[in-house]
Amino acid sequence: MAEDYRQMWAELGLDMEKHDELLSVLTEAYPSLYLRQANRPKGMEYFDFVVSEIHGLRIKELLEHKEKGGKVFGTFCLYVPDEIITALNGIAIGLCAGTDFSIPDAETVLPRNLCPLIKSFYGFKVGKFCPYFEVSDVVIGETTCDGKTKAYEVLGESQPVFVLEIPHRKNDETFKLWRTELDRFIEEAECLTGVELTMGKLREATKVANNKRKALQELNSLRWSNPTPISGKDALLVNQIAFYDDPLRFTKSVNELVEQLKERVAAEQGVFPADAVKLMTSGTPYAIPNWKLHHVVESSGYSIVAEESCVGSRYFSELVDEDAETLAGLLDNIAKRYFNIHCACFTPNEERMDDIVDLYRKSGAKGVINYTLSFCTPYLVESHKVKGRLDAEEIPLLNIESDYGMGDVEQLTTRIQAFVESL
Amino acid sequence: MAEDYRQMWAELGLDMEKHDELLSVLTEAYPSLYLRQANRPKGMEYFDFVVSEIHGLRIKELLEHKEKGGKVFGTFCLYVPDEIITALNGIAIGLCAGTDFSIPDAETVLPRNLCPLIKSFYGFKVGKFCPYFEVSDVVIGETTCDGKTKAYEVLGESQPVFVLEIPHRKNDETFKLWRTELDRFIEEAECLTGVELTMGKLREATKVANNKRKALQELNSLRWSNPTPISGKDALLVNQIAFYDDPLRFTKSVNELVEQLKERVAAEQGVFPADAVKLMTSGTPYAIPNWKLHHVVESSGYSIVAEESCVGSRYFSELVDEDAETLAGLLDNIAKRYFNIHCACFTPNEERMDDIVDLYRKSGAKGVINYTLSFCTPYLVESHKVKGRLDAEEIPLLNIESDYGMGDVEQLTTRIQAFVESL
Repeated sequence: MAEDYRQMWAELGLDMEKHDELLSVLTEAYPSLYLRQANRPKGMEYFDFVVSEIHGLRIKELLEHKEKGGKVFGTFCLYVPDEIITALNGIAIGLCAGTDFSIPDAETVLPRNLCPLIKSFYGFKVGKFCPYFEVSDVVIGETTCDGKTKAYEVLGESQPVFVLEIPHRKNDETFKLWRTELDRFIEEAECLTGVELTMGKLREATKVANNKRKALQELNSLRWSNPTPISGKDALLVNQIAFYDDPLRFTKSVNELVEQLKERVAAEQGVFPADAVKLMTSGTPYAIPNWKLHHVVESSGYSIVAEESCVGSRYFSELVDEDAETLAGLLDNIAKRYFNIHCACFTPNEERMDDIVDLYRKSGAKGVINYTLSFCTPYLVESHKVKGRLDAEEIPLLNIESDYGMGDVEQLTTRIQAFVESL
Repeated sequence: MAEDYRQMWAELGLDMEKHDELLSVLTEAYPSLYLRQANRPKGMEYFDFVVSEIHGLRIKELLEHKEKGGKVFGTFCLYVPDEIITALNGIAIGLCAGTDFSIPDAETVLPRNLCPLIKSFYGFKVGKFCPYFEVSDVVIGETTCDGKTKAYEVLGESQPVFVLEIPHRKNDETFKLWRTELDRFIEEAECLTGVELTMGKLREATKVANNKRKALQELNSLRWSNPTPISGKDALLVNQIAFYDDPLRFTKSVNELVEQLKERVAAEQGVFPADAVKLMTSGTPYAIPNWKLHHVVESSGYSIVAEESCVGSRYFSELVDEDAETLAGLLDNIAKRYFNIHCACFTPNEERMDDIVDLYRKSGAKGVINYTLSFCTPYLVESHKVKGRLDAEEIPLLNIESDYGMGDVEQLTTRIQAFVESL
């Protein structure tokens, strides 16, 4: 890291020994996983820098923001509306949840038979080695799945938590409930930040969020070129950093990367040979630093060119309609945009099947890896529907269930290679 | 069974070979588990008869009901309002979900890492050896947990399913949604049955359901006497049969049993010695024929005198307020009663902790076994809250996680005996 942040971490109350250990695990893994990839676009340097400063510069910025009276909102889910937080001079930060380093701490309280993402986040909090938790003034939870819904109660014992009700069916009545949930959230957030939500501020914040989504849309659709101009691993990293970097700086950096990729595409330059097999993934999110699946696939010489995932297409494919006359109207548009995310928490969720098929056709992938985190009931059960639809469309599918451990890397490699050979 | 029902089962399309196998498993287990208990109340004969006719007489009655134009509603959850079904000349039936016999069939489609109750019910349907599924005109599902919510979609491929949205937080807005869900359900049920819901019919049906609840309240509170006049296993069986027997006949039989138990209490007669250790359970439901925990506990000489469970206190402790002037008013009362069930699907769910403590104090139990079906995320995570509250109240607690297999019977016995010795 560029500076010595030890005093800052100590003042945040981190368990310094464990935190050092965590950073050294990350620092050791990153060069072999990321830096040694051949022919990386120069624009990735910014994102490498962000990772190198993962618990440094960004935390310092958040503390400076707080010193000036701003608030930090920790989040775990796409349903938490960034626009509203930004408009109230808040900063939304996706919290740490992507490593088994924190799981033993979590299992002292939570059941073992629980999604690794949930155990990971709770372990980070209870083990006190995530500075993002410690700078957050509040965690905004949601009732998307049983595991998170109930784990937020436990988290609430050591951190202020505000939970949004996400309905599980989509119709006019559940939309009404969701719309009132936004009002309840605004009331709470106004009270916390001391800022009143106005049309001007929300319009501006909506533009910021939409511009970020547009940049990510462009980046991710460039991956579909042949040869693909950026590795799936690099694109995944950008999609992950979207959750916690400063939105304006992030969007600028993505747009710079996009320009370079366009040049590569025009010159037919890529990071994989033009005849390399292209795959896409569908399923559960990849919280940073969960790079396992992408690393396994790309180490075998296949490229991942799309993710139907919360860290992927579900995050950026829909914009908020900025065309509204009133604050209430703009909030209606925001509510609609978020309600239209196709998470497996909804029943039925046929739109997600359409999304997978659509992304498969657009991306030029030769097959779909449907990836589910262990014990993630909504996506695990929905795998049956994914299989039904993809079989009907004659799209090759490999279902994979995995966690954050490295014990299954060889097995995954064998299964993925066998899948590709069958294509 | 009293009659030969083979033709009826064949006409229902059951897999006759598997169904024979299932019945023989049940028929073999029942005498040693139930009939050989010492000093059983004579009133249990009726319930033994109901079990002996489990796929016989009741199915015949349901078919006769259908021949006369009535409809059968299959259900899996306390949130489905019996009153409304009864008022529309429907019969509500709790479907089969309590045995690992059906799980291998389910695991061809559903993930292994899923609650046994859910796998069991789906296996019964897909394996075609549950006549209750086959006589049901519709299954009424609900969004209480991820596993059921998503499994209903899969079930919907082979059976009409109607899903009620159960919110996960309790406030005015979510109550409004729940109230509109009842209206949506009524519309659907009126359409299916061809019967219009009127105040007269709903008032009558509410009385029927309340009378059943009152009978169960009385039965279950007699268990707290010393010595306890009925085994926990027998009381559990009555609580299980409540879900599928004819409500009027059932209530009459429970009331007859209650009279006998009152005589026993007056005479200080019991099924366990007066100094036998009394325990209670809290947690997930016991779908028939899941008698494992009760059998293990009572075979060790301890009695179970209460269940804080959907098959137990959550089913009968609250009545519907019958005092209403209008149909809408009575429906409001029904909505309130169901919304007030303290299921772990709600966040927060502190009222459940109050219920456990209250039942512990009333029942005279010396300790609480908090029982959770494997992979039941809401109750597994909530176990932490149960422990926190019971520790604070200095109430002894044993957390047990189990499924429908018999492989852990010895381990459970050892753990429960060690728990009792520690009291």
